[in-house]
Amino acid sequence: LTNSQCYENLRHLCLKIGGRMSGSPQAEEAVKYTHNLLKNMNLDTAYLQPVKVPHWIRGEKEKAFYIENKKRIEISCTALGNSVGTGKKGIKAPLLEVYSLNDLEKIGKDKIQGKIIFFNHPFIPTYFDTFDAYSEAAAVRGYGAAEAAKYGAVGVVVRSMTQSLDDFVHTGSTRYQLNVPQIPAIAISTNGAEELSKKLKINPNIDFEFRTTCQMLEDVQSYNVIAEIKGTEKPQEIITFGGHLDSWDLGQGAHDDGAGCMQTIEVLRIMKALNIKPKRTIRAVLFMNEENGIKGGHEYARVASENVNEKHIVAIESDRGGFTPRGFSIDAPTDTLQKIKRWLPLMENYGIQTMKSGKGGVDINPLKPLGTVLIGYVPDSQRYFDLHHTSQDTFDKVNKRELELGAGAMTSLIYLFSQYGIN
Amino acid sequence: LTNSQCYENLRHLCLKIGGRMSGSPQAEEAVKYTHNLLKNMNLDTAYLQPVKVPHWIRGEKEKAFYIENKKRIEISCTALGNSVGTGKKGIKAPLLEVYSLNDLEKIGKDKIQGKIIFFNHPFIPTYFDTFDAYSEAAAVRGYGAAEAAKYGAVGVVVRSMTQSLDDFVHTGSTRYQLNVPQIPAIAISTNGAEELSKKLKINPNIDFEFRTTCQMLEDVQSYNVIAEIKGTEKPQEIITFGGHLDSWDLGQGAHDDGAGCMQTIEVLRIMKALNIKPKRTIRAVLFMNEENGIKGGHEYARVASENVNEKHIVAIESDRGGFTPRGFSIDAPTDTLQKIKRWLPLMENYGIQTMKSGKGGVDINPLKPLGTVLIGYVPDSQRYFDLHHTSQDTFDKVNKRELELGAGAMTSLIYLFSQYGIN
Repeated sequence: LTNSQCYENLRHLCLKIGGRMSGSPQAEEAVKYTHNLLKNMNLDTAYLQPVKVPHWIRGEKEKAFYIENKKRIEISCTALGNSVGTGKKGIKAPLLEVYSLNDLEKIGKDKIQGKIIFFNHPFIPTYFDTFDAYSEAAAVRGYGAAEAAKYGAVGVVVRSMTQSLDDFVHTGSTRYQLNVPQIPAIAISTNGAEELSKKLKINPNIDFEFRTTCQMLEDVQSYNVIAEIKGTEKPQEIITFGGHLDSWDLGQGAHDDGAGCMQTIEVLRIMKALNIKPKRTIRAVLFMNEENGIKGGHEYARVASENVNEKHIVAIESDRGGFTPRGFSIDAPTDTLQKIKRWLPLMENYGIQTMKSGKGGVDINPLKPLGTVLIGYVPDSQRYFDLHHTSQDTFDKVNKRELELGAGAMTSLIYLFSQYGIN
Repeated sequence: LTNSQCYENLRHLCLKIGGRMSGSPQAEEAVKYTHNLLKNMNLDTAYLQPVKVPHWIRGEKEKAFYIENKKRIEISCTALGNSVGTGKKGIKAPLLEVYSLNDLEKIGKDKIQGKIIFFNHPFIPTYFDTFDAYSEAAAVRGYGAAEAAKYGAVGVVVRSMTQSLDDFVHTGSTRYQLNVPQIPAIAISTNGAEELSKKLKINPNIDFEFRTTCQMLEDVQSYNVIAEIKGTEKPQEIITFGGHLDSWDLGQGAHDDGAGCMQTIEVLRIMKALNIKPKRTIRAVLFMNEENGIKGGHEYARVASENVNEKHIVAIESDRGGFTPRGFSIDAPTDTLQKIKRWLPLMENYGIQTMKSGKGGVDINPLKPLGTVLIGYVPDSQRYFDLHHTSQDTFDKVNKRELELGAGAMTSLIYLFSQYGIN
């Protein structure tokens, strides 16, 4: 809280580099910037791990309209990541509102064929943790286009992934499937979704029109950025911790996940500043391509699995924003979880008040087959989906102390693992 | 989280009424607005409790300069609440930097006489709870002018009360003492304080100049706004809960303390919506004049102490911002505290993770001589002093869910007291 550099590093990443989609010049610049930061910290290693990543580009500003009484009414939208474009002419078709993926089978091919499917799946507001609402709702963003295409739909419109009623459009990736037609997909704001749904209740025969010129280009060479302090006693036991360096393009990727990357680097700074020589190896990884491919996470796990000299005992990810600390979410066998929970009182100075069973993180999840204990850093979730994947995910939304407390909490936990292992 | 009205009520208070200093037309309007809200809720009572309040006005935009090599360099500033003005000509005198009130005696009258004292007391950044840093630092704002005047100082400049390094000026009240000269006092931003301190290290002979036209007018008739649901079994046992309706003028008094007021009203809304008939009387109080006099809090306690038919068992205040819930801070004998703590598991759905010994609140503190258990609602403190008493304390800084979760937590606790009392 007095010597931290993570806030100023994040300022640079957000304001000098900005949003950094996989394959973009900004992502490349972010790799160089963070690699340099790490090289100058007098660590045992600081290197780049090559990984090929998808290169999706957004193209021109997306446009969408609904047609009411022959009037075209514009509605703000954003293409979903990895989506194909509509072509320059756009597409126009009758709109059909559904709630979830399950509805498609109930409604059937006859009624879906030739239509644009509007997935209007609001967040459940009564869940305390907004990530629980996100997990439920996000299925339509991830799989809606592929599933609707199986029933002959020609396009997909998704309600933005937030509990907030506002005008911001939230991007995020959609995933096509082999041998299923690739149909274009966009998101509209929650206010837009409410408006559209209201119109459809009055008149179910509304046409919808949208135009996107996004496209997937050739894969690009990119990198995970890695640095470590080697263990003095059990160097082969690896504690991985990290965030993801890529982000969406609409904002600056401040909370998602510049915050996690800069906390990761801060862990190493603190260890060096305190002259700690960990017994086990601690390794920071800034993963590339979490947002639309997870290629960095998979490549890291692949290399780890092939290296018989490394034992990946635990991995910790910070990818839920740089908000005030609340807990750690732990994916481990019950007995291991119970052992880790004994450290909870040591975490209370950072505001960490829970350690409980739950998910690790998207980038570290591929380590699971290696038996690695996976841990997610859990900051407060209430504000995250106000800005997640939008133009609002900017540096000014990050509070310096909240970011630093998270880095401190991660450092303490990583220190404990480095000294005591998982047993 | 689905039916709450507190966020929209707060929007009205902030955007339609705005900052509401005691004695101002806005404060009067806020009394009418909230009284009307409560009158329309079908409660057992909704009334105004008269209280005379100080009427301090800021006057013209304040100006301050330091003089370096005969150049006047402007520095942004704000008069402290309750301060006298400098008069139209302003004052100019040599500047002397000190850290705390204790320094005055060490330095002595000879060196202080005729000078402007610059209290440069930064927040201690290493305290987890920012209120701990505030409590320490704020002594110079509250007592600096009166104490420095005893040593012959002619004016006071205070570093703004925040851990953040930025350009915002934080107002707040200063308190004069009987038979001590009243000297004018202002605050400058933390960046301004850093700049000035740096200049003084190079050249200790810097003159400072400032001009304020603030003044204290005649006391004004104002009101605490009160409403209650009478207890069905023990109506004479009173559970008071509230926030304060007045605020500083620089912002909109959103977190401080529009949030607490609207959470207070929300408690009653929830009770009515759930058709709860509390066994003990629950009474909402929107206190007037917390910021520069605490007249409302004292008047409420005076009336309570004179009413032999009322037993004030517990009072709960929300006046630490409308941020995400963390705990309750309890001022009670140890055995009572232990009993209340057994309810902690019932609070976890709101994010409440601690119930521990600590302060109640400024407005409810005058009830302490009656033996009332005092409880402060404790939201997360990390962001509060980024905006406390500044132009930044605006509606857009409040997150709807965080505000609502706080109202829910308060409601549950008040419900438990209304059913089970404090024993």
